[in-house]
Amino acid sequence: MPVGLQEPANILSVPGVRLASVAAGIRYRGRDDLVLIDCGEQASVAAVFTRNAFCAAPVSVARQHLQGSQVRYLLINAGNANAGTGAPGLAAASESCRMVADVTRVAPEQVLPYSTGVIGEQLPVARIEAQLPALVNDLAADRWMDVARAIMTTDTVAKACSRRLTLQGQSITITGVSKGAGMICPNMATMLAFVATDAVISGDVLQDCLNRSVAKSFNRITVDGDTSTNDACTLVASGASGVAIESEVELAAFQRELDAVCLHLAQSIIRDAEGVTKFITIAVEGATDEAEAAAVAYTVAHSPLVKTALFASDPNWGRILAAVGRAPIAALDLSRVAIYLQDCCVISAGEPDADYTEEQGKAVFEQDEIEISIHLGRGAVATKVWTSDLSHDYVSINADYRS
Amino acid sequence: MPVGLQEPANILSVPGVRLASVAAGIRYRGRDDLVLIDCGEQASVAAVFTRNAFCAAPVSVARQHLQGSQVRYLLINAGNANAGTGAPGLAAASESCRMVADVTRVAPEQVLPYSTGVIGEQLPVARIEAQLPALVNDLAADRWMDVARAIMTTDTVAKACSRRLTLQGQSITITGVSKGAGMICPNMATMLAFVATDAVISGDVLQDCLNRSVAKSFNRITVDGDTSTNDACTLVASGASGVAIESEVELAAFQRELDAVCLHLAQSIIRDAEGVTKFITIAVEGATDEAEAAAVAYTVAHSPLVKTALFASDPNWGRILAAVGRAPIAALDLSRVAIYLQDCCVISAGEPDADYTEEQGKAVFEQDEIEISIHLGRGAVATKVWTSDLSHDYVSINADYRS
Repeated sequence: MPVGLQEPANILSVPGVRLASVAAGIRYRGRDDLVLIDCGEQASVAAVFTRNAFCAAPVSVARQHLQGSQVRYLLINAGNANAGTGAPGLAAASESCRMVADVTRVAPEQVLPYSTGVIGEQLPVARIEAQLPALVNDLAADRWMDVARAIMTTDTVAKACSRRLTLQGQSITITGVSKGAGMICPNMATMLAFVATDAVISGDVLQDCLNRSVAKSFNRITVDGDTSTNDACTLVASGASGVAIESEVELAAFQRELDAVCLHLAQSIIRDAEGVTKFITIAVEGATDEAEAAAVAYTVAHSPLVKTALFASDPNWGRILAAVGRAPIAALDLSRVAIYLQDCCVISAGEPDADYTEEQGKAVFEQDEIEISIHLGRGAVATKVWTSDLSHDYVSINADYRS
Repeated sequence: MPVGLQEPANILSVPGVRLASVAAGIRYRGRDDLVLIDCGEQASVAAVFTRNAFCAAPVSVARQHLQGSQVRYLLINAGNANAGTGAPGLAAASESCRMVADVTRVAPEQVLPYSTGVIGEQLPVARIEAQLPALVNDLAADRWMDVARAIMTTDTVAKACSRRLTLQGQSITITGVSKGAGMICPNMATMLAFVATDAVISGDVLQDCLNRSVAKSFNRITVDGDTSTNDACTLVASGASGVAIESEVELAAFQRELDAVCLHLAQSIIRDAEGVTKFITIAVEGATDEAEAAAVAYTVAHSPLVKTALFASDPNWGRILAAVGRAPIAALDLSRVAIYLQDCCVISAGEPDADYTEEQGKAVFEQDEIEISIHLGRGAVATKVWTSDLSHDYVSINADYRS
């Protein structure tokens, strides 16, 4: 059961962007699993992809097509990752772009392919081809939630978020969708996210905005430490509003709303993580730099012992302490370390806090949203990582499902 | 249920070493949980300890006592880790040594303390003190299996191993015991191991022998990536045989048998890991150095997705490939990578092997002992890491038990 997450209402269309989904029978039956997004003729497109050395075929093709082409369409399928598929997989990813290009009369390089699902099976391109005319015909601005549902794999709730801001007296929209829900770790997990705005932003600036937002959202979530072969987050600026973001102030305002959309979409993935029963924030403060803060946060967030204790609502802080103690940072001075469960101090100056009681810890751990704060006392840098607990359902889902 | 592991018969006494165990009621009822080992008057003692920054009180005290003292006794309790216990915990560890010293008439610095169990509770030293006269009285050479049983926490099988070698026409014995079974990761996990021999070896040489053996055994196993606060492996040379190891050839022969004992004890911990249903060997070949080989092996060994696939007997090699792809090594050339499940090739030259069939993979994954080999094609260094799968029982054990 997802934690604090429901399918959103009031998702806003983004002028200039049209979407469609269809049931192509790639893997699932009785649900949509193929999506086409029309970014508009003048769109800027930015993207970040998995850093996994074994990246999937569509990631290779999308990276290549992004070099200098005027991207027009995004083609997304769920149920088959087209990863670990060798040369035939690369050919299939290219072929699917050519198919879209044929129907829409653009160049194949103007189409970016995305896949999520099982690794190691060949993509059934004929099933995609059969649905393309219908997909193109169905393109409409108000189909964001259909898309959010069609890209789901082990997700249980469709994830979407909209924000508005006013620039130059005009309303600008940012809307995005995302999917998880396992193999989630920094540097893009098995997750796809598509975000669009109708502002006018050049490709370089758009890429910079996306990088900044992703660093604080999609690259700060983890379910199981496993980075996927297929992850991608794509940001489209259709330009349909005619409002060009020019000043630093405008850019900052846009960045703030984009950050909010990405953070919501990223946290939604954790709230609906495989087998999740708790939504956990690991906050590290007092680090000398971001890398150190993240290293400590991820060591705690990845600890199966911490995660099973959270699942059991057992405030077993010894496991948190042991995880902090083995984090790969040099010369940790224990006498400066403090650990809090919400605002309840467990460790101060490296030793058990005299005022802490088991009842306080239990009361915190019984909640379904928990923040663990770790103060290192080394510097002024802070970061946050979001993660889920490790439950029986996580094991069941991953022992039964091929992802 | 442990994989391929039964309580051993024929464990050999080590001349010069006497042991005893007793039920002190530290945490458990109706079983022994306190151990004393008399190393003999002339013993050399070597040890390696956890590298966790939050090391337990007994680790701090043992490290200190090892500096220059003639170690005579080892005092071990199960059920309470005496970790995360601050200044009172340090005092309790020192106090327990003083108690042994009082009864046996040695200096407190000649006693090394060891604890394993729950973190964050104060050690009940009075219960230890009450049992010390009986413990000292019961010391005998043939009580290795009693000790193996008394140091267990979540272990289900007592772990011990003996080997013999002949030096200078005389038989030399090496016997050891170990305990796991969770929080197992390199640099000593929640594991204790005590190994003894009757050879005559100086402290420096003994420490070097132990370091070499541990690097290939206890520091190459992982259950959950969690390094404990308490881990320690101690090697005692009683010298009672009178046979002094002098030549390089003799030393190599001793090292070989010590390696075998440590490897057996380390693998026994994995065979009895929390919730284990499969005993997994991750073999990495063709690395440029040991660190790189280990980094790839541990990335695969720690992947919850790989571990749940192993639990499910699902040859989901995409998860192995994804884990190799995200391992923290620079510039991996995929076209040189090969992956085998036992002798069945899944990936060759970075792509799915044409001859691989799902049936072959299934046949391998249904076994309860599985070797996954990863060939990097970068150099000549190989290493092996041993791990367990991730089962429902792992979650149950760690959600229910305070360790």
